[in-house]
Amino acid sequence: MVVVMSVNSTVGQIESVNERLDQLGFQTQLIRGVKRIVIGAVGDRLVNDLRDLQQMPGVEKIVPIMKPFKLVSREAKDENTIIDVRGIKIGGDSIVVIAGPCAVESKEQLLTAARRAKKAGANIIRGGAFKPRTSPYSFQGLEEEGLSILKEASLETGLPVVTEVIDERSLQLSLDYVDIIQIGARNMQNFRLLKAAGQTDKPILLKRGMSATIEEWLMAAEYIMSEGNGKVILCERGIRTFETSTRNTLDLSAVPMVKRLSHLPVIVDPSHATGDRGLVLPMSLAAIASGADGLILEMHPEPAKALSDGPQSLTPEDLEHLMTQLQRIVPAVERKMQLSPLL
Amino acid sequence: MVVVMSVNSTVGQIESVNERLDQLGFQTQLIRGVKRIVIGAVGDRLVNDLRDLQQMPGVEKIVPIMKPFKLVSREAKDENTIIDVRGIKIGGDSIVVIAGPCAVESKEQLLTAARRAKKAGANIIRGGAFKPRTSPYSFQGLEEEGLSILKEASLETGLPVVTEVIDERSLQLSLDYVDIIQIGARNMQNFRLLKAAGQTDKPILLKRGMSATIEEWLMAAEYIMSEGNGKVILCERGIRTFETSTRNTLDLSAVPMVKRLSHLPVIVDPSHATGDRGLVLPMSLAAIASGADGLILEMHPEPAKALSDGPQSLTPEDLEHLMTQLQRIVPAVERKMQLSPLL
Amino acid sequence: MVVVMSVNSTVGQIESVNERLDQLGFQTQLIRGVKRIVIGAVGDRLVNDLRDLQQMPGVEKIVPIMKPFKLVSREAKDENTIIDVRGIKIGGDSIVVIAGPCAVESKEQLLTAARRAKKAGANIIRGGAFKPRTSPYSFQGLEEEGLSILKEASLETGLPVVTEVIDERSLQLSLDYVDIIQIGARNMQNFRLLKAAGQTDKPILLKRGMSATIEEWLMAAEYIMSEGNGKVILCERGIRTFETSTRNTLDLSAVPMVKRLSHLPVIVDPSHATGDRGLVLPMSLAAIASGADGLILEMHPEPAKALSDGPQSLTPEDLEHLMTQLQRIVPAVERKMQLSPLL
Amino acid sequence: MVVVMSVNSTVGQIESVNERLDQLGFQTQLIRGVKRIVIGAVGDRLVNDLRDLQQMPGVEKIVPIMKPFKLVSREAKDENTIIDVRGIKIGGDSIVVIAGPCAVESKEQLLTAARRAKKAGANIIRGGAFKPRTSPYSFQGLEEEGLSILKEASLETGLPVVTEVIDERSLQLSLDYVDIIQIGARNMQNFRLLKAAGQTDKPILLKRGMSATIEEWLMAAEYIMSEGNGKVILCERGIRTFETSTRNTLDLSAVPMVKRLSHLPVIVDPSHATGDRGLVLPMSLAAIASGADGLILEMHPEPAKALSDGPQSLTPEDLEHLMTQLQRIVPAVERKMQLSPLL
Repeated sequence: MVVVMSVNSTVGQIESVNERLDQLGFQTQLIRGVKRIVIGAVGDRLVNDLRDLQQMPGVEKIVPIMKPFKLVSREAKDENTIIDVRGIKIGGDSIVVIAGPCAVESKEQLLTAARRAKKAGANIIRGGAFKPRTSPYSFQGLEEEGLSILKEASLETGLPVVTEVIDERSLQLSLDYVDIIQIGARNMQNFRLLKAAGQTDKPILLKRGMSATIEEWLMAAEYIMSEGNGKVILCERGIRTFETSTRNTLDLSAVPMVKRLSHLPVIVDPSHATGDRGLVLPMSLAAIASGADGLILEMHPEPAKALSDGPQSLTPEDLEHLMTQLQRIVPAVERKMQLSPLL
Repeated sequence: MVVVMSVNSTVGQIESVNERLDQLGFQTQLIRGVKRIVIGAVGDRLVNDLRDLQQMPGVEKIVPIMKPFKLVSREAKDENTIIDVRGIKIGGDSIVVIAGPCAVESKEQLLTAARRAKKAGANIIRGGAFKPRTSPYSFQGLEEEGLSILKEASLETGLPVVTEVIDERSLQLSLDYVDIIQIGARNMQNFRLLKAAGQTDKPILLKRGMSATIEEWLMAAEYIMSEGNGKVILCERGIRTFETSTRNTLDLSAVPMVKRLSHLPVIVDPSHATGDRGLVLPMSLAAIASGADGLILEMHPEPAKALSDGPQSLTPEDLEHLMTQLQRIVPAVERKMQLSPLL
Repeated sequence: MVVVMSVNSTVGQIESVNERLDQLGFQTQLIRGVKRIVIGAVGDRLVNDLRDLQQMPGVEKIVPIMKPFKLVSREAKDENTIIDVRGIKIGGDSIVVIAGPCAVESKEQLLTAARRAKKAGANIIRGGAFKPRTSPYSFQGLEEEGLSILKEASLETGLPVVTEVIDERSLQLSLDYVDIIQIGARNMQNFRLLKAAGQTDKPILLKRGMSATIEEWLMAAEYIMSEGNGKVILCERGIRTFETSTRNTLDLSAVPMVKRLSHLPVIVDPSHATGDRGLVLPMSLAAIASGADGLILEMHPEPAKALSDGPQSLTPEDLEHLMTQLQRIVPAVERKMQLSPLL
Repeated sequence: MVVVMSVNSTVGQIESVNERLDQLGFQTQLIRGVKRIVIGAVGDRLVNDLRDLQQMPGVEKIVPIMKPFKLVSREAKDENTIIDVRGIKIGGDSIVVIAGPCAVESKEQLLTAARRAKKAGANIIRGGAFKPRTSPYSFQGLEEEGLSILKEASLETGLPVVTEVIDERSLQLSLDYVDIIQIGARNMQNFRLLKAAGQTDKPILLKRGMSATIEEWLMAAEYIMSEGNGKVILCERGIRTFETSTRNTLDLSAVPMVKRLSHLPVIVDPSHATGDRGLVLPMSLAAIASGADGLILEMHPEPAKALSDGPQSLTPEDLEHLMTQLQRIVPAVERKMQLSPLL
């Protein structure tokens, strides 16, 4: 950490800051600049606890040198984390494709979707049982009935299933039914939920918040890991910007940036990022080309009848076409398609 | 709602859309433009349920005409909502000042803060018992002990208290201790929590999410109101933008805009918006000048020792100075300062 | 400047960076942290020339300590700059009000507007002769004829006039006709134009770019000042964010922030910021309350017939009402209204 | 265009709006909704001229149906525009790679860069002679000497060259020296410059403004085309968002979105978008996978000595490696690498 003193700071103020740093366990070193004094503070305490330093008299600003996250960082663990979900590997040589409808609407709808997803070559089935909807007047999900349908789809197809949880209750309920727990963009900083997820032993699919920086996203993953659960899958799903022609702005540069900073796997959700079925194919290919470990895609047997997110859902035929295109681009970036284990 | 058909849409496609609108209970009317057909759809169903229309073949886009919110809108209720909290009025002629530390750290700290806030003329005491912190390694709050200290401060000073809840458990716990329940920016779209808050009879202080549009913020208020609790106080606290010299960008235009769209009271939090003690005074005055119904301010007896948000906390002396300045500007916009009822 | 070396940097890399800093005239000092080395580099060269350091092997990042601007900074000049435009003072105790139509449309329109602005108590007349319009099919301004009309209005009313220039040619043309040269948001980083403006002796009204940080805005002012023209008036006019209910997001926190960093006067344009006539009054009051030195307002004798920006233009009656409200709030923040000198 | 009347609008107000629309040459049709009247206005006038309608009494908002651009739109021209630059095709089956240093610093530097770019397989050489720098104290470019060096590099290598112009003077100067004129992000709304570029017969490489929506970017292209120059190459180079770990946020979804809206070619600049050499390779591959027609890359023979933008410049070896990777991904999206014509 570097403490920049203001141009007009006094000797007494500099001494006070030095003393405070000393109390906090830092070793300090003064740098006398042309116009001002800068104090280098050496120690391995994280800076978040130290924001109050910033307002000591004479302090202009605090410049952190260490990243605020530990366990998620590549400095803590150099090799990539590979998460195994009933034989499906996430974060290794092979990419993973997760597909299914936004919401579980009925047994028939989900089973049809699951069969079509499997046929197309997807590795994991998604489906929402608890829907965080912006309007109180919209469909809110089938809840436990939805979870039960997901489990049935998993048993029939042999594929793992993932569902989004929205609070501790839905998290506890889901543990018996699904293989991966998803924490959605709106809950990325729901710290209670992050902690609770960290106390389970399920892989956690952690979506980036709509207005979260990469650093905040990694801090959310740190919350989960700090409770003992290292199986975190990061998912880029678009950020909010001034551009309104797409639902969000897919930030693909985040993929190689996260790969540089962290050992955790990163997948991409082009469906929510663009909100536009016609953009899902090109952005899926771009995601893989940028280095993503996989994709999560919305696919609905009959998008026109979907109770939510129809405009961005692929049809089963769209998904098959996308998988064919993936088969061309995946080897071009020296990755492999993943075969699902036989039942 | 207006459905814009694409330039190449066919007669059959137009008929299908018409039929679907008819099923949904809309009356339709065709407008033949120079290049394309536009369908006017008349009905009072909210458009959020209708996004799937957007992907019917031949549809270019859907343009909603009605606002997606009902109960919060000024069309539903023309006169301003005034919320009475043990004699303190929020949303009326007089402005309200809420002050106190970010977090309840100890009985002594909070009681000192409460006494100083009262002395300065503040009307309501704030203090956090449950802290949503971005780092798992930071202070997380005193929880029920904090609530109990808040209640003691309320009893001693006679002033109502407000605290932030972060999930249903903390909400239930808080009901016995505090007068106003705060839902923070990170939970603005925690729909479970909004519903639970809507099922209580406490006033709810609803902060705007960091990346929430005004429309989304009002929809969050609608969630609360749709459960039967009409006592919602909106709080602008800055939005996330590219500007980094302040912690967030305080969007004061939102104040008159919300006043135009809704009958609910709006207050402003310049402490979190700017993250900078030196900007709290000018932005407090600006907030009142823009038409805000009040302020929520961070004040700590010893900001340099605060466990959180020290740099943006006022000292008790700063608060007294601010109140003096408010006394000049409040009558200039034809509002009044609010005297707290005697014990 | 502080150079943070990466965890894996070698002794040789650290030496190379040290040598390079030495060549560049910096004195260096090593800080040995727990995990990495940090190099403090002392010298008064600006860091912009040094971005290449960032890519030397082993360098993780460069942290500048000095601000990149010099002449505009309060460190260079402590007291506020007051600019005198034919007796009207900008940046002193009194606030300034600039009013007039977006575009000069005709002699009659502009003269009517000027008379009404003067009657209402405005100090300076605005009017655009060169219009930067986003559509090539829109009205582009009367050019020299417009300048001539502005001069006539100035002669008749005795008030100074300001107009926007869009390139070096329009700048040269305008010098003979107007008292203040405006550089618009879209040209804030048109560095040629900034230099040319810096070589004149006219006051320059420099609008903040739609996506410019405060630092970039001050750097644009530095461009003008570095050519010898110290008469720069900064103008906050809203930034681009995700919020679409207003045309831009007025960043009023920028007012006290700029006042802290710079000695230059700052005024606010609530008309362009909000794009909404109904928000101009509250945001004008808020701007003054936040510490702004004045306002620039769009006023049109008949907004409904305006060739541009009608929806945000005040009527003459609106302006009179606004001036009355200003008379209440201005003394509340210990400023004065400015009386225009008699002809 | 659809005019939405407010809930409280009167019959007289509706009639006035109808009359005004009639005067403007629109045919109108009334839609009587549950709560309000909506007026459909049919005609092919562009809506930008009609913003004043929005403020007629009783009008709540205007909803445009037609896009504001004409010539650039795919409705105007269905097949892709292919621009031929001395045998190099931009916008066809083959992708184009433009490479070279940010700034022309010396004859030796540029010639070395050009030779290395050609050897690596790039098709066009870039180099800046006029540098729009945010600091007045930074290197500003060699100007005409730089143009002359670019021409020499073109003659020696047989490759076309592109340079950025920053005003009408630099545009006129460049016409004799270079094959493609670049208009940078900061000048995307410099309408004078767009018009002047539209009056030349050179291909224009138009970068997207840092805070420009896709619609505004296409309107800027419309400016050029409306003057008669149809040879516009669009270039996505990142937009400004809250994320600061990359210089800008590369908006790759803009590539397929522009392809849907317009017939013009689109290339991508991953160097400026990310500002980070290590991200240029993955984002180049992602850009091609998203459907881009080519890339513009910064490459410097010795990035550590570059006078500008060193941290994002590839070395010649990096470029060779990138071209090898491109050879794998380009056929996977059914495109071809482009061979440069022999001298």
